[in-house]
Amino acid sequence: MDDTIAECRAVCPGDWVRPPAAAEIAAARTRLAARVAHTPVLRPAALKRVYGEDVWLKCEQFQPVGAFKVRGAANAVRSLSEAELKRGVATHSSGNHGAALAWAAREAGARCQVVMPRSAVASKRAAVKYFGGEVIDCGPSQEDREARLAEVLAATGAVMIHPYDDARVIAGQASATIELLEALPELGTLVVPVGGGGLCAGAILAARWLSRSLAIIGVEPAGADDTRRSLDAGCRVALDRVETCADGLRAQVGEVTFPVLESGLADLVTVDEAAILAATRWAVEVAKMVIEPSAATVLAALFQGGIPRGKGATAAIISGGNLDFDGAVWRRARLATMPGG
Amino acid sequence: MDDTIAECRAVCPGDWVRPPAAAEIAAARTRLAARVAHTPVLRPAALKRVYGEDVWLKCEQFQPVGAFKVRGAANAVRSLSEAELKRGVATHSSGNHGAALAWAAREAGARCQVVMPRSAVASKRAAVKYFGGEVIDCGPSQEDREARLAEVLAATGAVMIHPYDDARVIAGQASATIELLEALPELGTLVVPVGGGGLCAGAILAARWLSRSLAIIGVEPAGADDTRRSLDAGCRVALDRVETCADGLRAQVGEVTFPVLESGLADLVTVDEAAILAATRWAVEVAKMVIEPSAATVLAALFQGGIPRGKGATAAIISGGNLDFDGAVWRRARLATMPGG
Repeated sequence: MDDTIAECRAVCPGDWVRPPAAAEIAAARTRLAARVAHTPVLRPAALKRVYGEDVWLKCEQFQPVGAFKVRGAANAVRSLSEAELKRGVATHSSGNHGAALAWAAREAGARCQVVMPRSAVASKRAAVKYFGGEVIDCGPSQEDREARLAEVLAATGAVMIHPYDDARVIAGQASATIELLEALPELGTLVVPVGGGGLCAGAILAARWLSRSLAIIGVEPAGADDTRRSLDAGCRVALDRVETCADGLRAQVGEVTFPVLESGLADLVTVDEAAILAATRWAVEVAKMVIEPSAATVLAALFQGGIPRGKGATAAIISGGNLDFDGAVWRRARLATMPGG
Repeated sequence: MDDTIAECRAVCPGDWVRPPAAAEIAAARTRLAARVAHTPVLRPAALKRVYGEDVWLKCEQFQPVGAFKVRGAANAVRSLSEAELKRGVATHSSGNHGAALAWAAREAGARCQVVMPRSAVASKRAAVKYFGGEVIDCGPSQEDREARLAEVLAATGAVMIHPYDDARVIAGQASATIELLEALPELGTLVVPVGGGGLCAGAILAARWLSRSLAIIGVEPAGADDTRRSLDAGCRVALDRVETCADGLRAQVGEVTFPVLESGLADLVTVDEAAILAATRWAVEVAKMVIEPSAATVLAALFQGGIPRGKGATAAIISGGNLDFDGAVWRRARLATMPGG
């Protein structure tokens, strides 16, 4: 157990460092219905032209804050007692979870502090502030983040909301897949990006909750393939070095999420940086959708042919749209050779 | 048909210089069903947050070529005889109609020549070539375009497909509104950008064809407000100077389309350059949709409060998504102050 989780256990009255139970998944679905967007499921003609068959996209870039993370954050914040809300919430995040928690806290009238590495994407730091959160600087390592967060929690008594190793957060993320399964009864294969594993664990648990047979394929950047290595090793493996433009997928797969992924993933594929950049460019310039590199990983996986064409329809979750148009990643993406010429 | 008549009809396609009849609108709808995208109708949560109530968007940026123009172009090309297809098609266009005609011609195995001003947006010239069309350079004025096109038609015998003053083209554009009316039985107000007037005339005729009561509001850039002035004058007025970043709306309202607009528009509002740039930026950065400035005019009109909130739902047609990320317009847009802060 790392310090963060220990801290969470110390501060939270209940024990949330576990997967959500069925009743919690159901409660999250109900709680979120009026609080976050019921995002559209699109079947882009442009994607069919390149991929060769239809793929449905669950478009979480259209959420408030531009990412699926509002689901988990809003579910967690709305699960708090009045007394807890008064103390406020805190987390560490390289980006979307921080903005999502700031948004969810503001909607609930609570204070939110987000520990962020100084190296985080500028637009994501700005987003936390835009949604009313307080950014607390820290160094680049996981240890830096956790030490700084522990200080914040000790000083303010805020409730820690972990980006993924929290039953409330995973239950919230599950609602994206529940909506998708409701919209597409014929769904057979679902492609999901994997960072900390919250969205993917939520997908697996949603399919189980609905007793639906679904091949869930995780996608990781080759430069942040700790989940791939962890699955191969049979236990969580930390990388010495993480390097990917998919900034939302740099986190290590969680202590809670990993066993869920291990038991529930049909496959996990990796995509390289060139493919992620090309898919980002393709999404924006051809498909006319603003998506961030972390979300483009699922398109890259489709384009590279790594997804088996099984029974039923194929879908992917577009996790977010917070692409920094001032950043180096977008400049690099614009030089990429796009799929389909 | 002998060559003389064919030649005459190619250069002066008088048969088609009229609004489409009801049967032609119905035929276009059927013909296009399998040839162009049935684009989604989205209700962005982000738009409601700024506008204050729901607005539905018919998302024509998701068409092949990234614009509604494929509807009219494909309907016209697919209306041609075998002999006409062999001669190929030609047009003049500052952008999306040229690319759409190139696309539709290639799909039908026909040659396509597009007369374009050298000043046209670079990405739109590239798009014509990308879809297999031949770009023929001309000067910036309407006279330059027409003289060059007459030369092309005389030299090759190609069939001229006008961007808007053509019954086949207008019937094709009408299909966008037909799909929208089918999807939204409660629609009461529809906001449509006005350039040459083909999309807007199609909307008016679609509502009439379906006997639906619908308040259709046209939107023009203040720097290309010839339709506004023409409605005020009661006859078509040409501007001495057109200046707007909405490059798709620089054309003068048509001889065929103007009377339709005059008889069928509930209102026509104008939006200034700052509002168009701000709406473009907002669409990309907040709503995560890539739209071009011509399409952003309808959002600008909503944001400035110029659209009466009548009975039933409000919708707007997003005409296209061909935003040039290398261009000066996008650079200017990124400095704009967005609606909603």
